Amino acid sequence: MTMIQLFNYAGIFVFAATGALAASRRQLDIMAFIFLAAVTGIGGGTLRDLILGVPVFWVKDPGNLLVCAAAAIVVYFSANLLESRYRVLLWLDAIGLAAYSVIGAAKSLALGFDSTIAVVTGIMTATFGGILRDIISGEPSVVMRREIYVTAALAGSLVYILLHGITAKPEISALAASLTAFAVRGGALYFGWCLPSYHKPGRTTAELEREGVIRGAPPAPPRASD
Amino acid sequence: MTMIQLFNYAGIFVFAATGALAASRRQLDIMAFIFLAAVTGIGGGTLRDLILGVPVFWVKDPGNLLVCAAAAIVVYFSANLLESRYRVLLWLDAIGLAAYSVIGAAKSLALGFDSTIAVVTGIMTATFGGILRDIISGEPSVVMRREIYVTAALAGSLVYILLHGITAKPEISALAASLTAFAVRGGALYFGWCLPSYHKPGRTTAELEREGVIRGAPPAPPRASD
Amino acid sequence: MTMIQLFNYAGIFVFAATGALAASRRQLDIMAFIFLAAVTGIGGGTLRDLILGVPVFWVKDPGNLLVCAAAAIVVYFSANLLESRYRVLLWLDAIGLAAYSVIGAAKSLALGFDSTIAVVTGIMTATFGGILRDIISGEPSVVMRREIYVTAALAGSLVYILLHGITAKPEISALAASLTAFAVRGGALYFGWCLPSYHKPGRTTAELEREGVIRGAPPAPPRASD
Repeated sequence: MTMIQLFNYAGIFVFAATGALAASRRQLDIMAFIFLAAVTGIGGGTLRDLILGVPVFWVKDPGNLLVCAAAAIVVYFSANLLESRYRVLLWLDAIGLAAYSVIGAAKSLALGFDSTIAVVTGIMTATFGGILRDIISGEPSVVMRREIYVTAALAGSLVYILLHGITAKPEISALAASLTAFAVRGGALYFGWCLPSYHKPGRTTAELEREGVIRGAPPAPPRASD
Repeated sequence: MTMIQLFNYAGIFVFAATGALAASRRQLDIMAFIFLAAVTGIGGGTLRDLILGVPVFWVKDPGNLLVCAAAAIVVYFSANLLESRYRVLLWLDAIGLAAYSVIGAAKSLALGFDSTIAVVTGIMTATFGGILRDIISGEPSVVMRREIYVTAALAGSLVYILLHGITAKPEISALAASLTAFAVRGGALYFGWCLPSYHKPGRTTAELEREGVIRGAPPAPPRASD
Repeated sequence: MTMIQLFNYAGIFVFAATGALAASRRQLDIMAFIFLAAVTGIGGGTLRDLILGVPVFWVKDPGNLLVCAAAAIVVYFSANLLESRYRVLLWLDAIGLAAYSVIGAAKSLALGFDSTIAVVTGIMTATFGGILRDIISGEPSVVMRREIYVTAALAGSLVYILLHGITAKPEISALAASLTAFAVRGGALYFGWCLPSYHKPGRTTAELEREGVIRGAPPAPPRASD
């Protein structure tokens, strides 16, 4: 198994686990856990493959689906041990984001697409599964959170593409790039890092929050079921 | 017209009707009825065909779109006769789920894909149109309901695949499989069948509902417009 | 650059701007502006190309992505000058709808598909980016608004197809068709044009609104951040 394949399975497993955690927050049954896990785990890669015009990865290798089911079953039997399932969801999502920003970019480069497309497919692969999870399960969208998110996926893809151009070792490029993406997103989660956000002059962010215009800053308020 | 084609049109018609019912609950105009009917009726099959890498069925046979428009027009002129449009939506959705779990699996098998892919495309074809309908129209997602849903689609796909392996008559396989799926989903709707759902130990489902953590159990509370 | 290409870039720019405006209403950072701008700008055309089975337009010509980024940056630095960002979003969306209903239909015809498919891809290209924008950013869906929307896209596609059949000048067809679509949608926005909407006999639309059953009629109530 190559490094990229390992990243692929790791990304699928953790993203699938976040889908199952979302199902656990809705008190659903095991089939719904597996369904949401699969949608989240393979959603980003499916969109990437459709857009690049290549066979969808899990149709060629249904083992990917078993990884999703395994993650769902693990979460089904262990989610009750967690203090805050939404915090765990966000951290696993950060790991998945890091892994997928690399494999999304790597697949495009391997197919001969240029760097622009590789960046875009990196970001797309890293974010789309989580977007589907949040839309279907009714969670607030991770992409709409005010801490750095898309930027972390961009960082992972960019670092991979740069290193890919200057070294022959994909293992090193993949590791360095995914660590970069994870550091950026993890820092955003832990320290609440934000890029400057647009806001209407004359009103502070705090004022806007008080008025209920914008969603509360990080971290998201845990719900009673967490 | 083969049995599978008949199932296809039946599935499209009833799913399209659920889309139109969702439009009627939003008091929309006839074009929005047709739009939501088409999205719901052809959404699942479109995703299936894209993922399998074959031409999208309704591009080859635009008659499918006319079936959606017909369903929308029927609902537009008859929805006011219904006592509870959301109950009708759920039952038509159950019929569509049964028909589509079979044709989704059948198409994969006919194209030479293996059983795993056939199960997945069966579930996907059966659920994705309804997911799109609920997301776009702002209904609570049927997949997130706590009565059995995805499991019914799984049952339909599995029974079709098993019978397909032991009999040469696709008509019998299709009928038996779709009746199975409908029995499972219909029983869930009528009797409130649930699989055991994950919940945090120490709090009962009733407690969670009282606290507003989880959505009310079946059936969904009808809205004033029903 | 041909007329159709010009329409393509214009449509992408204004749709991308509406995505960025949605991001500004959520007080997001510049990367989220670009992300939502790209999803909105290229979403409809991406779906069209996937369904028609042709290479996705922005993979062949990544310049389209730069147009999205440019629109996002313009909005990021100018949105604070606007009185009501949601009104601007709706009007730019109307321009995008007009441009995309034409290029969606034109691409299908150019590829040899028949008029039915051309109408459908016209409507799809014109509406899907906005649907994605609204779903991801949590705005109320433009398609679910009660003023004429899908009908305007239908008008644009139909007029283009009719004129395409009787004149050799695509410029004239494209201009006339997009002006028609914009007139229909603009009239709906300005005068509140609605097609007759389904409603339960015995209760007026005003009664339904008072009871909170349906969303308020046009225009959408501006939020405090507008």
